Amino acid sequence: MADSSTNMRLRLPLLCIILEVILIILFGVLVEYNHDTDAKKWNKNGTHSAHEYENEFYYRYPSFQDVHVMIFVGFGFLMTFLQRYGFSSVGFNFLIAAFSLQWATLMQGFFHGMEHGKIHVGVESMINADFCTGSVLISFGAILGKTSPVQLLVMAVFEVTLFAVNEFILLSVLGANDAGGSMTIHTFGAYFGLVVSRVLYRPTLDKSKHRNSSVYHSDLFAMIGTIYLWMYWPSFNSAVTQYGDPQHRTAMNTYYSLAACTLATFAFSALLSHEGKLDMVHIQNAALAGGVAVGTAGEMMLTPVGSMIVGFLAGTISVLGYKYLTPVLEKKLKIQDTCGVHNLHGMPGVLGAVVGAVTACLASKDVYGEGFQKVFSESESVSWSASHQGVMQALSLAVTLGMALFGGLLTGLILKLPIYGSPSDTHCFEDGLYWELPGEEEDHTELTEVATPNEVEKLNS
Amino acid sequence: MADSSTNMRLRLPLLCIILEVILIILFGVLVEYNHDTDAKKWNKNGTHSAHEYENEFYYRYPSFQDVHVMIFVGFGFLMTFLQRYGFSSVGFNFLIAAFSLQWATLMQGFFHGMEHGKIHVGVESMINADFCTGSVLISFGAILGKTSPVQLLVMAVFEVTLFAVNEFILLSVLGANDAGGSMTIHTFGAYFGLVVSRVLYRPTLDKSKHRNSSVYHSDLFAMIGTIYLWMYWPSFNSAVTQYGDPQHRTAMNTYYSLAACTLATFAFSALLSHEGKLDMVHIQNAALAGGVAVGTAGEMMLTPVGSMIVGFLAGTISVLGYKYLTPVLEKKLKIQDTCGVHNLHGMPGVLGAVVGAVTACLASKDVYGEGFQKVFSESESVSWSASHQGVMQALSLAVTLGMALFGGLLTGLILKLPIYGSPSDTHCFEDGLYWELPGEEEDHTELTEVATPNEVEKLNS
Amino acid sequence: MADSSTNMRLRLPLLCIILEVILIILFGVLVEYNHDTDAKKWNKNGTHSAHEYENEFYYRYPSFQDVHVMIFVGFGFLMTFLQRYGFSSVGFNFLIAAFSLQWATLMQGFFHGMEHGKIHVGVESMINADFCTGSVLISFGAILGKTSPVQLLVMAVFEVTLFAVNEFILLSVLGANDAGGSMTIHTFGAYFGLVVSRVLYRPTLDKSKHRNSSVYHSDLFAMIGTIYLWMYWPSFNSAVTQYGDPQHRTAMNTYYSLAACTLATFAFSALLSHEGKLDMVHIQNAALAGGVAVGTAGEMMLTPVGSMIVGFLAGTISVLGYKYLTPVLEKKLKIQDTCGVHNLHGMPGVLGAVVGAVTACLASKDVYGEGFQKVFSESESVSWSASHQGVMQALSLAVTLGMALFGGLLTGLILKLPIYGSPSDTHCFEDGLYWELPGEEEDHTELTEVATPNEVEKLNS
Repeated sequence: MADSSTNMRLRLPLLCIILEVILIILFGVLVEYNHDTDAKKWNKNGTHSAHEYENEFYYRYPSFQDVHVMIFVGFGFLMTFLQRYGFSSVGFNFLIAAFSLQWATLMQGFFHGMEHGKIHVGVESMINADFCTGSVLISFGAILGKTSPVQLLVMAVFEVTLFAVNEFILLSVLGANDAGGSMTIHTFGAYFGLVVSRVLYRPTLDKSKHRNSSVYHSDLFAMIGTIYLWMYWPSFNSAVTQYGDPQHRTAMNTYYSLAACTLATFAFSALLSHEGKLDMVHIQNAALAGGVAVGTAGEMMLTPVGSMIVGFLAGTISVLGYKYLTPVLEKKLKIQDTCGVHNLHGMPGVLGAVVGAVTACLASKDVYGEGFQKVFSESESVSWSASHQGVMQALSLAVTLGMALFGGLLTGLILKLPIYGSPSDTHCFEDGLYWELPGEEEDHTELTEVATPNEVEKLNS
Repeated sequence: MADSSTNMRLRLPLLCIILEVILIILFGVLVEYNHDTDAKKWNKNGTHSAHEYENEFYYRYPSFQDVHVMIFVGFGFLMTFLQRYGFSSVGFNFLIAAFSLQWATLMQGFFHGMEHGKIHVGVESMINADFCTGSVLISFGAILGKTSPVQLLVMAVFEVTLFAVNEFILLSVLGANDAGGSMTIHTFGAYFGLVVSRVLYRPTLDKSKHRNSSVYHSDLFAMIGTIYLWMYWPSFNSAVTQYGDPQHRTAMNTYYSLAACTLATFAFSALLSHEGKLDMVHIQNAALAGGVAVGTAGEMMLTPVGSMIVGFLAGTISVLGYKYLTPVLEKKLKIQDTCGVHNLHGMPGVLGAVVGAVTACLASKDVYGEGFQKVFSESESVSWSASHQGVMQALSLAVTLGMALFGGLLTGLILKLPIYGSPSDTHCFEDGLYWELPGEEEDHTELTEVATPNEVEKLNS
Repeated sequence: MADSSTNMRLRLPLLCIILEVILIILFGVLVEYNHDTDAKKWNKNGTHSAHEYENEFYYRYPSFQDVHVMIFVGFGFLMTFLQRYGFSSVGFNFLIAAFSLQWATLMQGFFHGMEHGKIHVGVESMINADFCTGSVLISFGAILGKTSPVQLLVMAVFEVTLFAVNEFILLSVLGANDAGGSMTIHTFGAYFGLVVSRVLYRPTLDKSKHRNSSVYHSDLFAMIGTIYLWMYWPSFNSAVTQYGDPQHRTAMNTYYSLAACTLATFAFSALLSHEGKLDMVHIQNAALAGGVAVGTAGEMMLTPVGSMIVGFLAGTISVLGYKYLTPVLEKKLKIQDTCGVHNLHGMPGVLGAVVGAVTACLASKDVYGEGFQKVFSESESVSWSASHQGVMQALSLAVTLGMALFGGLLTGLILKLPIYGSPSDTHCFEDGLYWELPGEEEDHTELTEVATPNEVEKLNS
């Protein structure tokens, strides 16, 4: 599968520069400031300046920054658990995220932001671009350690495009709700990545088995990623919901879901692991499933207790997945899922979609009052009913799964071409292929010795 | 003290699941969205929707997220300084915080949030739940490395309950001010934990002495915790103050207090340490005492210079405590305080309470103008006077100390039962008891070798 | 250059305490709450309380916290890349930042915040103080590993003062725009530090060469700094811009610039490095140059595509600088630039100043509409023209370079006095000189052994 050389000297620079030049040209032709970022448009009405706090910036920018941290620190560090793949985890995460957010701005703008032939950008498009990027990073988790940065960029080109198509179908055609992206981000990203991993199956990956594990400090670095994802997930799910009660409620529902999920994770990790000991893989990943699982229903009147039940279920199926399903996927279905994205994003994403469909079915004006339309934007139309919304939500899940499988298959086949400098089976999970590695640490003893001031004085005199 | 097995296979899952089921039942019965998170209530008035920015979310959510980071990253990583207890520090911190914030929502809601038999939740209850959690984590610091996760959860059950009682007495009965929790959070958490540690005294803890220290990288991980606590402390102290000037002023007072505290910490660390070298323990901990010490007075008109003086004092007594008091506490009073919470939270908390009482005594309408009632909510009542407020503040400190001592004693005795899988004296400060540990790192030399592309090419060909 | 002893026992405490006492006295005499932090002033009008959201706190505090993270975590951890200088990197960064922000509050207040003989402080002065601190930390990067903490504090005293003078000339006298500080912060800080480094030239620094490099884990710690700087840079550049569209636009321009810069960095790193492998030094540093380079023009109508072009250029020249210029600077000009601040802050800062001047020249009421005055505050005056603004911007760059060179020279000469406990050439880049270092880690094998529950049971029975 790998070509004979993993040398990136020409391939990576060429691809990066070509992509960035294309981005710059398209941005030049297509992208404009929106109403809230343009000096002329925002200040059109002289008296308007008394209400600067109505600028979307003040409603969404703090959430945007939290999402941004999840994308770059959360995903980046979560994947540093491998003992010799920290540079690549954080570094390639950085590269493909920086590319994807630009490409996503165009693709998402093309599908649902064009006005007069222009894409108008502001903080909401920044959040949406980061969301789309999250999907690519989920797929990255499935193929972590087995791909070159060139392959990852090529994957991002296709995945972002298909993400935008799928998102357009779900939100604009089917009228589905999915503010936190249980379907658009998690389910799509996970199954896309799993199919890519299946196509790129490596029968002799065992040769790199000794590197496909953590060491003590790499697990602590990974916990930085976990904890940031966990803490900021309420901002993630609420970032693009309507102002006021939906944003507030979504954040709180996510908070409770994650808390309950964490207790389930510790419980089942200890129950299922060897001698009752906790497994870091579970804590690092399954504790986050609660955020995924309320990504659709979080903005609805799910109630705190509803959120907790969903979170508890999500944590449980996620740990069970790591314990029992991942080995089966690898042996029977030949899906090598490095980070276990099926357990963290796949199953909890599907659960979130189902919970969203059910919660939508149960929606009523009795419960939502005048706030109904803020959550279900089409509820004013005569043809709308709660059960109709529920059906659309379920249909959205099916469409997402279909798009992910098709997209992953197509992209996987393209990534299989022997031109990207992919690592051989013996050299997976190894930073040294693509990074100049520093030497070993100096002998501490000697260093500590020279550091004794008395000796310093002697040496200096 | 320890029972013969530290196996958590049944104990931990059972306890987690039982607690979460109880939480879910109680949330189902008692907890409802509040005015700002409920779709119906928030949108009751159709015209209201023009003022979404008045939703409490926009005043408090950014502060909430900062507090959330302090609880999970700040406390979690601060305790990773031990060489072989990083998994437990971050992991158990994660577990007991996720439990405590749910339990605290109920306990605090029960004592001061019930309306029509229901607890109404929104961002302020999330912040308060995180605050209460902080108190449990402070106590955790005193017994770090010497307890099983089951013991920690049991402690959290009792401590959260007593925290809510104490908070109710202080804020509702005595009418004390304590926005940043010098008393309710820091003093209570520290002395509670110290008494628990006293009751669980281990006479032969020296057998684990070689593990009760840091290594180079663990100290750097701990600095992540320190710096995040330090940076976000202004948000912590201001998170639940009144809107407008009090929130703004509290954040700024805390900022100045911490800056001055840091200089005091470096000064006294170099002065008192061996050969004028700085001690990481001081930098990691004492530099934070300035945040603790303005937790009560920070919302008052303490002035920037007042904050700096308090911060400087707090840093000084904290370093002195680490140097001179901690060894005495251990030898004479048999209090083994792993993280030195007495120096970081105990003494600075008491200092903060005293500063709060004095600053309240000095309050006058001359200084506060129309803003008086925003800080002293009962100042409109005829019986109120500044000195009366000062007395109530001082009384609050006494109540807090009493509650902490009583609660710590009770909880300590319960934790002494030999049923929790507590570690033996020879196996304290050791992750291996409760975590599956990864193997050692691969030999780097070999890895670096295989990474040479020339060789890769050869191997591949 | 170094005196015979690096013992800090008296020097560091004395300096810290004297400085803090001076700060406390000056704060007591000069500093007052401003309109938005003072209880009396803010609540002067009883009816005013309906509009608490107009308090500056809600417009700027989230940005302040992001800037604060950049200063303490961003700069602090970015410099932990050295294998044995992590304590000093994070620790001294902490110390000099905590001092500088207090000193900067006074110096900046003195030059442009005095009213009735008092400096009035609020969240904007906190941001500006953090900005000034950033400049000192940039200079710290140039001399990292070669100075004692006493030298760093002395440098901060002078640099903060000159920063405030330069900032006053640029913003108040010349009327320049520089919201994100391409000139005031980055250009000034970089060239100031480089001149200091030149004056403190160490001809035999090679003796510490083996320590002037990274190890695997230290590079990962440094990436924490990099990523936080990268993520929060949009907040940095927009933190003190006008409310509404300028703040929103600046954040977005910075976001696009950084994304494009990251692709340029990866491209040129792979192109120029040995065997096409990526160099961590480039990724850690050059990827940030895009934020520096839109520090002046970011608030203007630079357009997204303009930002991307600037970011791409900045990343390119930064990598080229690391590859080709840094060795020349060291050999020919005798400037030893530990962190390569010339490549990250120097050249990109100058680029940012030039881009700012050009963008200002091109400004017109056609493009900015009624928002013109929000960006160019003096544009209402009759003598104002876009080209005049452009000239003032260019002049500002010249003044900044002059001030930095003069200030760096003066400060460097003062720092050369043999009284500060500077390290000898053989002991640079070594924590052990100023920190008590922990011992080596326990033997893991033994630890893992004792952790086996079976053995534990045996031992306990």
